[in-house]
Amino acid sequence: MKAVQVVGYHTKLQLTDIPEPTVEGPLDVVVRIGGAGVCRTDLHILEGQWEEKTGVALPYTIGHENAGWVHAVGDAVTNVAVGDKVILHPLITCGLCRACRFGDDVHCENSQFPGIDVNGGYAEYLRTTARSVVKIDDSLEPADVAALADAGLTAYHAVAKAAKTTRPGDVCVVIGAGGLGHIGIQVLKAISGVTVVVLDRNPAAVELAVKIGADHGIVADGTHIQQVLDLTGGHGAEAVVDFVGEGGATREGIAMLRRAGNYYVVGYGENIDVPTIDVISTEINFIGNLVGSYNDLQELMTLAAQGKVTLHTTRYRLEDFQQALDDLDAGRVRGRAILVP
Amino acid sequence: MKAVQVVGYHTKLQLTDIPEPTVEGPLDVVVRIGGAGVCRTDLHILEGQWEEKTGVALPYTIGHENAGWVHAVGDAVTNVAVGDKVILHPLITCGLCRACRFGDDVHCENSQFPGIDVNGGYAEYLRTTARSVVKIDDSLEPADVAALADAGLTAYHAVAKAAKTTRPGDVCVVIGAGGLGHIGIQVLKAISGVTVVVLDRNPAAVELAVKIGADHGIVADGTHIQQVLDLTGGHGAEAVVDFVGEGGATREGIAMLRRAGNYYVVGYGENIDVPTIDVISTEINFIGNLVGSYNDLQELMTLAAQGKVTLHTTRYRLEDFQQALDDLDAGRVRGRAILVP
Amino acid sequence: MKAVQVVGYHTKLQLTDIPEPTVEGPLDVVVRIGGAGVCRTDLHILEGQWEEKTGVALPYTIGHENAGWVHAVGDAVTNVAVGDKVILHPLITCGLCRACRFGDDVHCENSQFPGIDVNGGYAEYLRTTARSVVKIDDSLEPADVAALADAGLTAYHAVAKAAKTTRPGDVCVVIGAGGLGHIGIQVLKAISGVTVVVLDRNPAAVELAVKIGADHGIVADGTHIQQVLDLTGGHGAEAVVDFVGEGGATREGIAMLRRAGNYYVVGYGENIDVPTIDVISTEINFIGNLVGSYNDLQELMTLAAQGKVTLHTTRYRLEDFQQALDDLDAGRVRGRAILVP
Amino acid sequence: MKAVQVVGYHTKLQLTDIPEPTVEGPLDVVVRIGGAGVCRTDLHILEGQWEEKTGVALPYTIGHENAGWVHAVGDAVTNVAVGDKVILHPLITCGLCRACRFGDDVHCENSQFPGIDVNGGYAEYLRTTARSVVKIDDSLEPADVAALADAGLTAYHAVAKAAKTTRPGDVCVVIGAGGLGHIGIQVLKAISGVTVVVLDRNPAAVELAVKIGADHGIVADGTHIQQVLDLTGGHGAEAVVDFVGEGGATREGIAMLRRAGNYYVVGYGENIDVPTIDVISTEINFIGNLVGSYNDLQELMTLAAQGKVTLHTTRYRLEDFQQALDDLDAGRVRGRAILVP
Repeated sequence: MKAVQVVGYHTKLQLTDIPEPTVEGPLDVVVRIGGAGVCRTDLHILEGQWEEKTGVALPYTIGHENAGWVHAVGDAVTNVAVGDKVILHPLITCGLCRACRFGDDVHCENSQFPGIDVNGGYAEYLRTTARSVVKIDDSLEPADVAALADAGLTAYHAVAKAAKTTRPGDVCVVIGAGGLGHIGIQVLKAISGVTVVVLDRNPAAVELAVKIGADHGIVADGTHIQQVLDLTGGHGAEAVVDFVGEGGATREGIAMLRRAGNYYVVGYGENIDVPTIDVISTEINFIGNLVGSYNDLQELMTLAAQGKVTLHTTRYRLEDFQQALDDLDAGRVRGRAILVP
Repeated sequence: MKAVQVVGYHTKLQLTDIPEPTVEGPLDVVVRIGGAGVCRTDLHILEGQWEEKTGVALPYTIGHENAGWVHAVGDAVTNVAVGDKVILHPLITCGLCRACRFGDDVHCENSQFPGIDVNGGYAEYLRTTARSVVKIDDSLEPADVAALADAGLTAYHAVAKAAKTTRPGDVCVVIGAGGLGHIGIQVLKAISGVTVVVLDRNPAAVELAVKIGADHGIVADGTHIQQVLDLTGGHGAEAVVDFVGEGGATREGIAMLRRAGNYYVVGYGENIDVPTIDVISTEINFIGNLVGSYNDLQELMTLAAQGKVTLHTTRYRLEDFQQALDDLDAGRVRGRAILVP
Repeated sequence: MKAVQVVGYHTKLQLTDIPEPTVEGPLDVVVRIGGAGVCRTDLHILEGQWEEKTGVALPYTIGHENAGWVHAVGDAVTNVAVGDKVILHPLITCGLCRACRFGDDVHCENSQFPGIDVNGGYAEYLRTTARSVVKIDDSLEPADVAALADAGLTAYHAVAKAAKTTRPGDVCVVIGAGGLGHIGIQVLKAISGVTVVVLDRNPAAVELAVKIGADHGIVADGTHIQQVLDLTGGHGAEAVVDFVGEGGATREGIAMLRRAGNYYVVGYGENIDVPTIDVISTEINFIGNLVGSYNDLQELMTLAAQGKVTLHTTRYRLEDFQQALDDLDAGRVRGRAILVP
Repeated sequence: MKAVQVVGYHTKLQLTDIPEPTVEGPLDVVVRIGGAGVCRTDLHILEGQWEEKTGVALPYTIGHENAGWVHAVGDAVTNVAVGDKVILHPLITCGLCRACRFGDDVHCENSQFPGIDVNGGYAEYLRTTARSVVKIDDSLEPADVAALADAGLTAYHAVAKAAKTTRPGDVCVVIGAGGLGHIGIQVLKAISGVTVVVLDRNPAAVELAVKIGADHGIVADGTHIQQVLDLTGGHGAEAVVDFVGEGGATREGIAMLRRAGNYYVVGYGENIDVPTIDVISTEINFIGNLVGSYNDLQELMTLAAQGKVTLHTTRYRLEDFQQALDDLDAGRVRGRAILVP
């Protein structure tokens, strides 16, 4: 089958022909890829940023946001059948460690990460397991939802935490109206009564954010901290979800936070650097956020099927992977680039 | 009545004679002081560290850890009667703001802090309100529990949060086996099934911590991070309660934390300075902790009455306040110094 | 001032002239009534059903769903000022008992209930305290929201609990599409991602419920249990909120509940009569629900101001109280009857 | 191997010789039985009470509280190795349904129950899967802990819920000081600061309960409801855990419950029969309880290894199963009867 592989770092990806994956273990599921999201992480992989961390042997197939149709299943698979439309949780988890037994898959002690440390989805087929395939509604197309598998799931996971700790009339500031931010805003409006205030440097992004549901949009122009304080009676927001995490976002975000408020860290890059006396005197919390669980992904797919969460995508043929990456790198992709085999 | 007052910064406290406070408002409660804790904060006040923050007019009576007997009550007071033994919540709160209405007194939007911004308890009498007096069991003496009003309540509040988020067999590392640490250890053992590991640089403090209930004591000698990792199968602890917050404690504490673990910030001094990528890739949380609520103080007094939480105290006559402060400053106080009028 | 009073049981209410209430205590607030809801409980009071329970001395002014403008305040009132538009929490609470200190006002150990055991709101003025007045948005009119003070607040409180324990895609069955049901449905849609299925015997009520946001409406025609099971893959619903509580509703509701589901009891009349073996083998819970807290009422007013919760009302002049009661008794009121002085 | 089987209802069990179970699936684990608890449910099975419910084909091997050593493992088993000492979670769960994915194994949609609907542990060997085996500490012996697998796990699960919803100084009434009650009391004291009040008709059982940690013991002699009210200032207990569930226990237990209290249903037999008006006017909850999860069992084993939970057992050789059952039926077993192959 066709697959796009990492053949070396600081080198272009290569389209090649490799054997189709087959069912080897009883819980294995082979998926025919319907769409694979093209993510900034893919660029970072090629830059070698993950080389040491994963130690993955080259060549291997890249692509960690995948959806498609079940092509073959192992003997012990009971939750999907051949032909089912599925989206793939980004991790392959063991199901036996204590974290998995709590439903906290993401902290599985024995996980694999297709597209990062084993073969991923820039290909015609991918092998995962029954524990990673989520059936999706007939109304959804794999290529339309593939990018929700990782980026969307991370946004969902973070804002679902914020939804749990806020009440109607509370304010949640969303820093960053990019891809994750857009998912986050839609989810917040769909599952909570919180008032959503969106911040971004890009006026067009702010405008779009308001169009998809944000209650207030603020362009980060230097007055934005004060604007948030004004909107909240000088107290600050009960929650800040930071999808940026660099360029001073954390310092600014903390300044917008109310006493006893929660700061959800999602984006990364800079350090959180905050005096402990500020943390204790205002009794604020910093909440880390990784990708969501399998059940989180089921819930996100429910919201997608209900039309409450949508994502703009631009499709490319698998063979045009280089164009997709180039467009992404140059900021030419609107929404999310998806490779379709 | 006799009162010890701040008459200037960088100046000694002065014993003076001022009028007894009287009931002015319907919810006022005048308490005859039975004991007032001498706290390091009192030293900091004299150094001027709180001058700008509070803007309190001098002279005023210092002392923010108070217990005694109800001496007089306003018309609308229904929860205590003259003669009741009471401990005083450190804040006077309004009861009307949204935080108060949630039971989250500490974030009252209109609070006063006797001993810090209004007259405190280094005196024969102190005026507070019905909202701040907690009746204590007959078996307890005001002078014995006074220091639980602030330091103890802070420790209780923090470890009660840790108790809620851990399960039997989980490990909670307590950094710092000083006054707050000792209360924290006793409370953790009284209200949870968590395994308590105590860290301190002082071997004698570690030894005492184990005697009062810690499951493991580790002297912070450079191998302590590794020792915690060894005790936790290499994973780190589910919770770290940091009563130190300076001298590198936070960096070390984070290194001892398990994936998805909670870091409770109580002690302060240095900055938390942590890469956002570390926060998100391990999905850890930082939880700020201020003093506990009125109901927290009731619960702590229940544990004290049950003999589950005890505190070593050294009593001084009110007139000997200078000796008490000097002893505290010189590290000569064992447990907590208490002024008794 | 004019007031409508209970002068005897099994006797008609009487319009009479009594002195205006005045501020007596420092936290007292006198409210000029803008609207008072007419409730079925008012009919029950006249039938003597509350006589023994409250032991209220006659005559007294009836009316327990009140809103208006602040007319006078005591010295210690800081949260409202004369002229403010307010809705009244149904209870006057002490603020000092442990329940109040947790924000759980409804279980105050020393509460009063205007309209039930002290003078209520079928009058020009009513005396309550600072602890019971919630400021409302300028866009809201007292007469429009008065009925949310008790009936609406009860619905809000119950469904907010259901919202906390469900997740997107879960199903919440609402039994009863009357006044409380309509508020409940609107709140569920505003604050959660749950799928709302409404049941009622009245096809018109079901139709209206769907119009205001319910995802599915089912007429209770004998096939309704099966219809709920069909909608839930045979498993039943994660939550059932029962606003009826009589006529077999609980038995039917339990049959619609999924394993580990929650049954929210709001309406009352019949007994819950369920074998303990069914409770434990399916591990279901029954959750009691009384009226909401002060903070709940603030949140409901936020949703009302945002236009997310609306209530149809029919206004009557205070003098026409008998007509309003007669219309209510005869089922002639659409939405809620409101007396306007 | 030797196995004790159900060969018919209303007929004695039969010791017979059947083939040893072998590893068939990749996650299978064959356990050499070290101890199998003899439970009242085993008597009920023979009486035919489970016949219709399970439809199990006869003959089959009985015994649902099992512990031992890992004898053989399938290819995909990573959490235990041959020779490991293990206790068996009572259910074999799928790991793929939504309940399993939440860690809520007990509501697995595809579970099996060895000893009830497939071959159990009155035998030399038993086949289960990797998902059901919990490694136990070296200090524990299978025969000593086997009875914690089901009865103990149920008690743990229920009181752990009660521990989560209570605070230090709150009162938890434990109805029934039998086997489950004893485990429950020990767990409550080990993991919470709640005050435990035990009720039983048998004075010797109450005495023993106090000896193992209950704070108050009350013999159910007709004055017991009043005694609980007296102990709680007339308010009732914040939590009641009912291990009896018959003979009027629920009616009495409800009378002991405080406003907003939680009633944990564990024992069964009679109906809960309570007016909905009582449920709503006091806002009480009824919480169903089935057996605990896999992770609950890990935690209970941690408490057992720490010596915080112990169980008196009487051992019988497997061949003497009839004697064990007869002794149980006649009330001659002290603690729990355990069959040891």
